[in-house]
Amino acid sequence: MYRSHNCGELRASHSNTEVTLSGWVQGVRDKGFMIYIDLRDRYGITQLYFDEERTPKAIIEKAQKLGREFVIQVKGNVIERASKNPNIPTGDIEVVVSELTILNKALVPPFTIEDKTDGGDDIRMKYRYLDIRRNPVKNSLIFRAKVAQEVRNYLSNDGFIEVETPYLIKSTPEGARDFVVPSRMNEGQFYALPQSPQTFKQLLMVGGMDKYYQIVKCFRDEDLRADRQPEFTQIDCEMAFVEQEDILNVFEGLTRHLLKEVNGVEVEKFPRMLYDDAMRLYGNDKPDIRFGMEFGELNAVTQHKEFGVFNSAELVVGIAVPGGNSYTRKEIDKLIDWVKRPQVGALGMIYSRCNDDGSFKSSVDKFYDQDDLAKWAEVTGAKPGDLVCVLSGDTNKVRAQLSALRMELATRLGLRDPKVFAPLWVIDFPLLELDEETGHYHAMHHPFTSPKPGQIELLDTNPGDVKANAYDLVLNGNEIGGGSIRIHDKATQAIMLKHLGFSDEEAKAQFGFLMDAFEYGAPPHGGLAFGLDRLVAILGGQETIRDFIAFPKNNSGRDVMIDAPAPIDDDQLKELSLKLNLKS
Amino acid sequence: MYRSHNCGELRASHSNTEVTLSGWVQGVRDKGFMIYIDLRDRYGITQLYFDEERTPKAIIEKAQKLGREFVIQVKGNVIERASKNPNIPTGDIEVVVSELTILNKALVPPFTIEDKTDGGDDIRMKYRYLDIRRNPVKNSLIFRAKVAQEVRNYLSNDGFIEVETPYLIKSTPEGARDFVVPSRMNEGQFYALPQSPQTFKQLLMVGGMDKYYQIVKCFRDEDLRADRQPEFTQIDCEMAFVEQEDILNVFEGLTRHLLKEVNGVEVEKFPRMLYDDAMRLYGNDKPDIRFGMEFGELNAVTQHKEFGVFNSAELVVGIAVPGGNSYTRKEIDKLIDWVKRPQVGALGMIYSRCNDDGSFKSSVDKFYDQDDLAKWAEVTGAKPGDLVCVLSGDTNKVRAQLSALRMELATRLGLRDPKVFAPLWVIDFPLLELDEETGHYHAMHHPFTSPKPGQIELLDTNPGDVKANAYDLVLNGNEIGGGSIRIHDKATQAIMLKHLGFSDEEAKAQFGFLMDAFEYGAPPHGGLAFGLDRLVAILGGQETIRDFIAFPKNNSGRDVMIDAPAPIDDDQLKELSLKLNLKS
Repeated sequence: MYRSHNCGELRASHSNTEVTLSGWVQGVRDKGFMIYIDLRDRYGITQLYFDEERTPKAIIEKAQKLGREFVIQVKGNVIERASKNPNIPTGDIEVVVSELTILNKALVPPFTIEDKTDGGDDIRMKYRYLDIRRNPVKNSLIFRAKVAQEVRNYLSNDGFIEVETPYLIKSTPEGARDFVVPSRMNEGQFYALPQSPQTFKQLLMVGGMDKYYQIVKCFRDEDLRADRQPEFTQIDCEMAFVEQEDILNVFEGLTRHLLKEVNGVEVEKFPRMLYDDAMRLYGNDKPDIRFGMEFGELNAVTQHKEFGVFNSAELVVGIAVPGGNSYTRKEIDKLIDWVKRPQVGALGMIYSRCNDDGSFKSSVDKFYDQDDLAKWAEVTGAKPGDLVCVLSGDTNKVRAQLSALRMELATRLGLRDPKVFAPLWVIDFPLLELDEETGHYHAMHHPFTSPKPGQIELLDTNPGDVKANAYDLVLNGNEIGGGSIRIHDKATQAIMLKHLGFSDEEAKAQFGFLMDAFEYGAPPHGGLAFGLDRLVAILGGQETIRDFIAFPKNNSGRDVMIDAPAPIDDDQLKELSLKLNLKS
Repeated sequence: MYRSHNCGELRASHSNTEVTLSGWVQGVRDKGFMIYIDLRDRYGITQLYFDEERTPKAIIEKAQKLGREFVIQVKGNVIERASKNPNIPTGDIEVVVSELTILNKALVPPFTIEDKTDGGDDIRMKYRYLDIRRNPVKNSLIFRAKVAQEVRNYLSNDGFIEVETPYLIKSTPEGARDFVVPSRMNEGQFYALPQSPQTFKQLLMVGGMDKYYQIVKCFRDEDLRADRQPEFTQIDCEMAFVEQEDILNVFEGLTRHLLKEVNGVEVEKFPRMLYDDAMRLYGNDKPDIRFGMEFGELNAVTQHKEFGVFNSAELVVGIAVPGGNSYTRKEIDKLIDWVKRPQVGALGMIYSRCNDDGSFKSSVDKFYDQDDLAKWAEVTGAKPGDLVCVLSGDTNKVRAQLSALRMELATRLGLRDPKVFAPLWVIDFPLLELDEETGHYHAMHHPFTSPKPGQIELLDTNPGDVKANAYDLVLNGNEIGGGSIRIHDKATQAIMLKHLGFSDEEAKAQFGFLMDAFEYGAPPHGGLAFGLDRLVAILGGQETIRDFIAFPKNNSGRDVMIDAPAPIDDDQLKELSLKLNLKS
């Protein structure tokens, strides 16, 4: 037996108990006649004590040679400390060591195993197993496990059945590139790894499972971005005999449960916002509503003067920056530079200072008088002391630009407190979106999403206007979940695929199995999928998902440590395999 | 709202309630002036009632046209039935229908959606979504979900943290062929799909996670056998600072928990058996101990006579078949044919009848007298009325043959009751096993398994004698779990890999990341993995795992329905992907 207790559980009540502990040497304080060692494991830190009076000399000498991160086992007696440490749960006691065994040595770690480490990102990722020993990372992984367990508890209690769906499937492209897996049993053929279990969960609904969920890995063979992994985890759900309202209620319940159980936060009923309103008021389909700064559209109050920039713009739109009139000219110039960065892409920014005395001073005083600027303030909700920032141009572009500016300013103003949670349903998404490069329409959600009742006829004439039975759950400016009511009849699915550019043959080859299933009594159904990685990060109050993933991949798709992928070939595999086990 | 209640919940207490139900038409009984419809969903069946007096004519006409598996919604009033059906929970009531909506039509299903269906295996697999509507399959999937949830509950309560490990990894062959996944971001390089998260869970132990678990898909690109899928699910666990005894206790606890919560069965402390004893007494490392019929080795009592077959055999071994003396000569001849089948491979079988009067009659009376045969009976534990069956030959082969015979006879004798659970730990497995074709030794468990203390020196001289800290959990003759105490120091791991035929360079290239990690303070650790598919099937009292998998693959590795894998190429994928979504 390696231990009688862990390093986090001894209290004053254990005094005079003989204990055995195992763990890592956090640090050795050698004061000559006495030695203190902090012994660490997942559960905490216990102070070990060696002194000349009570500890055999050989053990003291052994202790003096211990390095950081050595793995040791000790036996000893629990005593109350003379000077207690109120900062740790075991701070009332220490263990007077009578036996010491070195279980494993350790090289000097390349960075300190402390809450605040001296290790940079790259080295911490390279030695991820050492990084995981640090409380912030360890606690993030434990936090993730708790979130997942609470999800399972909630959904199980609500009658959802967890069903595993296959990972080696036929390619049914859903928007991104599939990873493909050559089949050696069927030469020249490939499996694909699922981008989501979408079609399988729909088949489960056809199969009468009624309420399905799964926490499942999904795969996209795409370029990695800062915070996107080629493999990611989804909380995947589907329900039969439901309308949008049913789904929103269930998953609002789940999210409230998580906020309560995991964060101890009670949240009011989630507001709902039309996609069109989200775009109009926040320039974004996942608005952060922890703060205001809503867009004010200014076309009507700007296009009556001779200012060509505005007059030629499809959209003139502004926001009020609280207290922004205190910005110096230099600070405002920097802000203008910020919106002109290629990542944002604005050509410039017009502003109007709202003075405390009710007057205005704008960068376009030549064109606009005080009455005009008063209207800008009114439309954007600016108060004396604020700054109105105005962008103009093509609607889609200028909304994205002003949304970026709004988020940036809110961050600077401290309005994005990670401890505050502002969930929001965004509903009535468009069914299709236009690819401006090719001029073709694509499914905004996926090709199985149903149009709003009665709108399917619009597909021919006004495809961009057709709304879908689709909804996103947004939390603090992040899309954490999304879903839709699905098409459940063959005819509608065929029309949809036709509009997405599939010939009848292609539709049959790719989705025939699903459309065939729809002919055998498919119930109305719909669902939702949460991105677990992002959900966990946001609940955990972090911007980045990486600390909540045990072994993330870096930007070239390699595991942080194991350096996959590797060049391997069939012979190499076979040879290795033969060496290892004759069962192969 | 599609329904106010589901089809399994209405009782007499709901009488005179207006309800809305949705579901599938199980069957229509049209008696002219009245119609009965059984409406089915996941939760049960409710009888719908239409009669000329109370139901509008148009609705009756619509009801008459409903086919099996049509999806309908009805509104109506709950009434107590005149003649109750005690066989179903809703048997006290029926719903008098006032409104009827057809939600979706259905083609005539290719087999009946009944507990006992008229559909053969192939057709049921092809239309798996229809098969899942049947109670036996539906309940199997629900059963699986319950087992998984109980596993999570038990392990979470015991301090295990669920950690997700990557699916796209570097190939670290563990005995079978890896599936490989070409990386388009890193051309010419491949990921592999994990055969198990073995190395990652060991890294988590190095990282101090202490107790890890995961229910995780694993992959083997091997020929499919009847009951083996290329993707399978594992309950994967690892613990730090443990000896074999700790692990056996934890997972015995888990298994007892499952048997209690899922099967309502209390089991005594699990017996433990040495691997060598299992092979000697049952010819098998996963003996079914629900019944006796232990092997009796007969060399000492057979090799003193002139019977060459026995005298030249490495092993002469028999079992007593309870009541087997009642077999006719013809039946025994058939049994001899059975052991001579290629799948078993015996050259013949010698037998001795144990007559009720205490005398014997054997097939080798020419060589052995009554005293000899009495010893056979004594060694095999045969009683008057039994039959002693004896095989001989090379030890390994003859043990496997007699084990097959033992299992077959037990099945015929009804000794393998799926409702009886006999768990067993088999311990002290050999570290290595000999590949008789190549003459090389391979890791019996995997290359990370530690030898028993002090035995590593034997590797050079007697590799086949080295025992491992490895153990299997056996349930009713099936290996449901297996694991080991791992090597946790670089030097031992290097010796082990050398003995498995890896050059230093190969060892470094394949396992360097793990051995490097061992240098930074690796704790002693070990673990166990359960095969969830088989565990669930055995707990569910079934021989086959397939009904407990929503979408199993057939023997050519294709999904039963979706017919993966398919021939696809990169261009094809790209084109499809473009059609679907411009985000790609």
